[in-house]
Amino acid sequence: MKLWQKETGSKKEVESFTIGRDPEYDILLAPYDVMGSMAHAHMLSTIGLLSAEENEILQRGLKDIYSEIEKGEFAIAPGVEDVHSQVEFLLTERFGDVGKKLHSGRSRNDQVLVDLKLYYRNAIKDIVAESTELFEMLITLSEKHKNDLMPGYTHTQLAMPSSFGLWFSSFAEGLSEDLGLLKAAYDLANKNPLGSAAGYGSSFPLNRTMTTELLGFGDLHHNVINAQNSRGKTERTLGFAMAGMAGTLNRLASDVCIFMNQHFAFISFPDDLTTGSSIMPHKKNPDVFELIRAKTNQIQAIPHSVALLLTNTTTGYHRDLQLLKEEIFPGIETLKSCLRMTTFMLNSIKVKENILTDPFYKHLFSVEVVNDLVLKGVPFRDAYKQVGMDIESDRFSPDQSKLNHTHEGSIGNLNLDLIQEKMKNSVHNFNFEFIDQTILRLLNKN
Amino acid sequence: MKLWQKETGSKKEVESFTIGRDPEYDILLAPYDVMGSMAHAHMLSTIGLLSAEENEILQRGLKDIYSEIEKGEFAIAPGVEDVHSQVEFLLTERFGDVGKKLHSGRSRNDQVLVDLKLYYRNAIKDIVAESTELFEMLITLSEKHKNDLMPGYTHTQLAMPSSFGLWFSSFAEGLSEDLGLLKAAYDLANKNPLGSAAGYGSSFPLNRTMTTELLGFGDLHHNVINAQNSRGKTERTLGFAMAGMAGTLNRLASDVCIFMNQHFAFISFPDDLTTGSSIMPHKKNPDVFELIRAKTNQIQAIPHSVALLLTNTTTGYHRDLQLLKEEIFPGIETLKSCLRMTTFMLNSIKVKENILTDPFYKHLFSVEVVNDLVLKGVPFRDAYKQVGMDIESDRFSPDQSKLNHTHEGSIGNLNLDLIQEKMKNSVHNFNFEFIDQTILRLLNKN
Amino acid sequence: MKLWQKETGSKKEVESFTIGRDPEYDILLAPYDVMGSMAHAHMLSTIGLLSAEENEILQRGLKDIYSEIEKGEFAIAPGVEDVHSQVEFLLTERFGDVGKKLHSGRSRNDQVLVDLKLYYRNAIKDIVAESTELFEMLITLSEKHKNDLMPGYTHTQLAMPSSFGLWFSSFAEGLSEDLGLLKAAYDLANKNPLGSAAGYGSSFPLNRTMTTELLGFGDLHHNVINAQNSRGKTERTLGFAMAGMAGTLNRLASDVCIFMNQHFAFISFPDDLTTGSSIMPHKKNPDVFELIRAKTNQIQAIPHSVALLLTNTTTGYHRDLQLLKEEIFPGIETLKSCLRMTTFMLNSIKVKENILTDPFYKHLFSVEVVNDLVLKGVPFRDAYKQVGMDIESDRFSPDQSKLNHTHEGSIGNLNLDLIQEKMKNSVHNFNFEFIDQTILRLLNKN
Amino acid sequence: MKLWQKETGSKKEVESFTIGRDPEYDILLAPYDVMGSMAHAHMLSTIGLLSAEENEILQRGLKDIYSEIEKGEFAIAPGVEDVHSQVEFLLTERFGDVGKKLHSGRSRNDQVLVDLKLYYRNAIKDIVAESTELFEMLITLSEKHKNDLMPGYTHTQLAMPSSFGLWFSSFAEGLSEDLGLLKAAYDLANKNPLGSAAGYGSSFPLNRTMTTELLGFGDLHHNVINAQNSRGKTERTLGFAMAGMAGTLNRLASDVCIFMNQHFAFISFPDDLTTGSSIMPHKKNPDVFELIRAKTNQIQAIPHSVALLLTNTTTGYHRDLQLLKEEIFPGIETLKSCLRMTTFMLNSIKVKENILTDPFYKHLFSVEVVNDLVLKGVPFRDAYKQVGMDIESDRFSPDQSKLNHTHEGSIGNLNLDLIQEKMKNSVHNFNFEFIDQTILRLLNKN
Repeated sequence: MKLWQKETGSKKEVESFTIGRDPEYDILLAPYDVMGSMAHAHMLSTIGLLSAEENEILQRGLKDIYSEIEKGEFAIAPGVEDVHSQVEFLLTERFGDVGKKLHSGRSRNDQVLVDLKLYYRNAIKDIVAESTELFEMLITLSEKHKNDLMPGYTHTQLAMPSSFGLWFSSFAEGLSEDLGLLKAAYDLANKNPLGSAAGYGSSFPLNRTMTTELLGFGDLHHNVINAQNSRGKTERTLGFAMAGMAGTLNRLASDVCIFMNQHFAFISFPDDLTTGSSIMPHKKNPDVFELIRAKTNQIQAIPHSVALLLTNTTTGYHRDLQLLKEEIFPGIETLKSCLRMTTFMLNSIKVKENILTDPFYKHLFSVEVVNDLVLKGVPFRDAYKQVGMDIESDRFSPDQSKLNHTHEGSIGNLNLDLIQEKMKNSVHNFNFEFIDQTILRLLNKN
Repeated sequence: MKLWQKETGSKKEVESFTIGRDPEYDILLAPYDVMGSMAHAHMLSTIGLLSAEENEILQRGLKDIYSEIEKGEFAIAPGVEDVHSQVEFLLTERFGDVGKKLHSGRSRNDQVLVDLKLYYRNAIKDIVAESTELFEMLITLSEKHKNDLMPGYTHTQLAMPSSFGLWFSSFAEGLSEDLGLLKAAYDLANKNPLGSAAGYGSSFPLNRTMTTELLGFGDLHHNVINAQNSRGKTERTLGFAMAGMAGTLNRLASDVCIFMNQHFAFISFPDDLTTGSSIMPHKKNPDVFELIRAKTNQIQAIPHSVALLLTNTTTGYHRDLQLLKEEIFPGIETLKSCLRMTTFMLNSIKVKENILTDPFYKHLFSVEVVNDLVLKGVPFRDAYKQVGMDIESDRFSPDQSKLNHTHEGSIGNLNLDLIQEKMKNSVHNFNFEFIDQTILRLLNKN
Repeated sequence: MKLWQKETGSKKEVESFTIGRDPEYDILLAPYDVMGSMAHAHMLSTIGLLSAEENEILQRGLKDIYSEIEKGEFAIAPGVEDVHSQVEFLLTERFGDVGKKLHSGRSRNDQVLVDLKLYYRNAIKDIVAESTELFEMLITLSEKHKNDLMPGYTHTQLAMPSSFGLWFSSFAEGLSEDLGLLKAAYDLANKNPLGSAAGYGSSFPLNRTMTTELLGFGDLHHNVINAQNSRGKTERTLGFAMAGMAGTLNRLASDVCIFMNQHFAFISFPDDLTTGSSIMPHKKNPDVFELIRAKTNQIQAIPHSVALLLTNTTTGYHRDLQLLKEEIFPGIETLKSCLRMTTFMLNSIKVKENILTDPFYKHLFSVEVVNDLVLKGVPFRDAYKQVGMDIESDRFSPDQSKLNHTHEGSIGNLNLDLIQEKMKNSVHNFNFEFIDQTILRLLNKN
Repeated sequence: MKLWQKETGSKKEVESFTIGRDPEYDILLAPYDVMGSMAHAHMLSTIGLLSAEENEILQRGLKDIYSEIEKGEFAIAPGVEDVHSQVEFLLTERFGDVGKKLHSGRSRNDQVLVDLKLYYRNAIKDIVAESTELFEMLITLSEKHKNDLMPGYTHTQLAMPSSFGLWFSSFAEGLSEDLGLLKAAYDLANKNPLGSAAGYGSSFPLNRTMTTELLGFGDLHHNVINAQNSRGKTERTLGFAMAGMAGTLNRLASDVCIFMNQHFAFISFPDDLTTGSSIMPHKKNPDVFELIRAKTNQIQAIPHSVALLLTNTTTGYHRDLQLLKEEIFPGIETLKSCLRMTTFMLNSIKVKENILTDPFYKHLFSVEVVNDLVLKGVPFRDAYKQVGMDIESDRFSPDQSKLNHTHEGSIGNLNLDLIQEKMKNSVHNFNFEFIDQTILRLLNKN
């Protein structure tokens, strides 16, 4: 008999297929589910759907559950469908019918939505924190190696003099700019969907402004269909933001892999951070950076997975949306670990000194010499001709030890302070402190 | 003899392959190339690389070229490589050697970069303008149809009452939120790359702050490698922003296609805006919206194309970057035309009235009736039971003509004014006026 | 102190990052690793690198390990790096130095490659088996419902008469055609990479033809760099094949979701296979098909993830390749479960009868009536005119109960036998029996 | 007044949006439209819908139009909707009413489908031809450089000795394997959809087997819905096949770009095929290969664009399908030009000789030396130890001029004849000759 012909177990087969990997992601939503419920209960008590006493009981009960979650004592019991049911189940078990009243004026749809928004808000905070660590490491290395020259390439061809100071801080400034997309994602995550119910609102006189304030949301999705549509749009936008930052890390990792190649040999890492071979002493495999390169590609693939899940679908909740978690949740962890591992590895980077003094690199300096002559008053055309002839007759021997670049953001004027200012402002815009304080107040912890 | 064996024509074969479709996109950059050159010349005259007279000649010459571009009299002459060479060629032809001096302290790389940034900045302004038109149309329709109820679906199943007012304004608020990603792209486009030369800066004492101000840029990419890395990152971010807005339009179009289906028959358009058949009078093919659906999918594919072009490549210019134009430039036009066409079509939409009074839809009201009873004091459990029994015994006959939803963003309280405020603020943040005025000043037009 | 500053644990941090989710996928390769080793040992014994006795010991040892794997008694011991090391470790532990000799003339690279090839070969066999089940279900349903008419749509608009017989068997034939891509993937998986060592071959006089035959491979990758390049190419091709079949299932699921909508109401499923609501009796949420739709989108995203991992990388193994498993391995399971679940659900589908007899659908028959008149000798122009006038004056009342379509593949002539023949031939081409027998011989089981 | 408010021009606006870039692609379908019509007319004459005389007139008329197309004298007249209408218009203009009879038993849908199938069939033939040219070039270069050693890399680190002979022929064999996916696409393109009408068949007694034979199709899509569903599936499959081959070219181009880098300097091209700089004599920019790398990425993006256009849509024609042409048609030309340009460039490649004799590369030979010792009877453990000690004490000085690799597909035994055999068989499978002859017969040209 074929599997699909078995009468018994049919429901089970369906259940296993539909639940999928949800439980492992659901548990991450637990603290946010409690917060959302606290705000909702407070609000219900102001519109007559909960008495003050009932609200007090629920607040106490929810706070206890929150503590259990913090202590790692919370789990979804066998047979309970999801994290939301588990919280409701605990409340009802402990306090009776009042536990069920919590669901008035709320649908599973907007409950999940608010949990996700709070979870993403926090995930973005974590990503910003990891980015800041990496940013500071890059600034430190840039300052330390500001006088260490290296070649700059165009078309993968030796082109102009560059420096490690310039190279490291290019990624620092890059990260600071990546926060722009992350802020766009944050602004979307930081909008209250609660009260949208199943996506078409409720006939109860809910006070959505109140839950917005209690949860520290920056704004609310006014239109309830739009609130529901933000499921998917929030993930799409967060996916873009993560992919953007992944693009920056991917380039850094690509550079590292090539700079570690023996023909370049510009940088190295301690033996215990690379993979080698006793009989092939020339090998220092950059496995960590190859994996950062690959993992940032996995993150860059997220927007496409999300687009396929969402496109050509109509207004209103579809079960398809459940699978967004499988794309975004692991992506968040991957991005954080890539940021952390990049910082960790760079902490041990060794940079080769005096690379450019090798005559191999002398042609890199041809434009420098022409410009120097021009600045000394030689007409450009003559300067160019003279250098060209020197090169052709192999008499070209520039000073390969230093450069005189002075303009903003150049080798000799890295503007690290301004780049740091830029980062500081970008981080400041998120206003994480305000949210932290609001949540502490909600949890009655401050 | 095989094609690739021909000696003659080899160079030509290579040229045709490498130039590709650039000329058709390059011409769009002409006005921005002139602006960038004006700012660069002004700056060069302050650091001794151009005399005041030379600068004046160049400014006049560039202004003339700008006028020719505006009048459609500008073209890339045969044999001239690109738009940048054409501008330089015209200047040299008209004013002699001073035309060549313009290229001091500048590389083709940062010249193209600044052109692209200015072009994207303007494209985003256009997109915001088209979005605003559509936004206003949606608000108008929402206000007009605020009392026209329709079904709301979840799982593509009839679920709850909704309204056309709610449906139209959901997309209005959605568009206002899409501007967040567009602002992130704008902030990146609005950073000055000039002075980064080939990506490693210059030994000339360039004043990058000055060109930043002259071109109205909000900031500069300080680090010159980072400036070069913004080629690609800017396109990636703009691609994300366009894909985000395309996602909103795709959903609207998907809804329209299904609502026009004869089983739904909720909306219709005049005959001359649909495609029909004389012998199949039931057919009103929604070709325009099918194409909006499809074209917004093409736009949503841009991030993947851009990611493939960029990923796993190292720091420094690569010729690969040239092809970014083929992804982004047509995408901009497609998005603008989709926005415009959606506005155009919605201007003629006809909405079916009194849909929900049909008994077919009565079960949509079951939750409403339960909630009403609860608000009248009936305990929830009893209310639910009573309605359930009425439904089972087929005695359930709710009032299907109106709803009493009052909370923020609900059917009865659409918050259109707040949504309009949100849009206004989003648009205001771009500060387009400041840039317009700066550019007018640069062009010496105000 | 910051995480990345801790001296101790650095190596551990790196290890955890680099190992990633490999162990959970590695274990799936165990039986194939044993097969590959058996073939390799046989071959080594013919070129003097193993004695006959040593080979016999290894064959016996490997056969035992294979049994342990089959019985679920095999696991990767703590501290052992991967499945390949575990097998080698067991052999050495049990038989001494001869265990280490197995690795002569083999690198970890070609060892993993051959494991993956054998694993994919088997996965494709599983997918074909699941496809065949679904195919048969579709043929059965098509035969059963060959006389049940339904509307056919174009532009999501009612267009022409169709039938359930036609609809079901369209997917059957579609599946049979999807096997073409799967065969292309199979042909690539079915090529022996063993002997390519680290991607540049070996100075040992390996007999690659012999291992090709022992493992039942259809051919070998001759060129050893090409063998190494097949890592990635095999996954890309398999990803395409899975995405192709996923596209077919996605369409079926999309149809089901819309046909279950109450406006259509063409099909239904038993209550225990849908999700409903006691108070919203109209709702039968098609969760399973929404998830099939979504999961097939996850599968369709695989080619893009794989492309990003591979593109712009150079010849030779990169650690990035390790992450291909994370894309492909779960994709295989997802595709198999989608096929199985579709079969399972369709086994319970209920089809509405006599849909088209409703006058609502009468215009669907206008072309039929015109054609009938033409076949009866009325000139087309006159027939068309007559029907057009009947429709306009609302006198059009065609026989809506049956159709007379007779050509190949039409409603009245479904060609199910020919479609079954097509499927049979497609499956036959894989020649799975030959491989099964070869492997049984290798395992000394037949 | 806003654009969308203008009454006049509304229809025009819509037309321009819906037609899009179709005309430029449509013209490419002209010869295939004629072929399809010829076959359809023949068939109609056998089932009484055309008289023998009418068929003769149409055949003559169509043959004339085909000649006009061949001579470049065919164009879509202003006001005529598309290529199909133009052909019908010409026939009617020239022969009167019989021209209109051609459309009996055919819909625009299956007419376009058959045109596309024939066009794709021919495009695949062209791609195979270009692949064959490149294949032969690679084999020639492999033979020529079979003794030129070079380093082999893993993890972008120097690893083992390789050779140019091995490198060139790795791509040759790779291309031969890429034909597998192309064959899968071909098999789908090579199935007759004619007779499926609007996707639901026809009440006329069409003889679909007859048109299948007349057009040389290998088979037909029996089920008419499946025939319609092949619109999209054919493009998806062709997109996969092109992306697969693009992946191979992308790797070749990536290798070339790095091997041309001055640190490697393994290969070079004549000055007129690279881009340089008079003052930077070290630069030889590999623009052509950078563009091949980038263009093959554009091709690899096609599957995602196609997936987004198709996914989550239901059975039946949607106007969205029209845009598939914009993805596939330019992709075909891009792939062909990348193949051609790779062949063209490789024809001029110069390979550096004696690379590995430089002591810089001596560690590459450590495994060789160990294996040699083993083959001479030294136990592996001792051999390994001895070489390790030699390396550590810097006494390791292997013979770096030659290798003794003998197994199938190794440096010393490239198996070029077998690889050529493989390619020949792959090409043979397409059976292009049979189709060419059938089409000549249809066109009455043989």
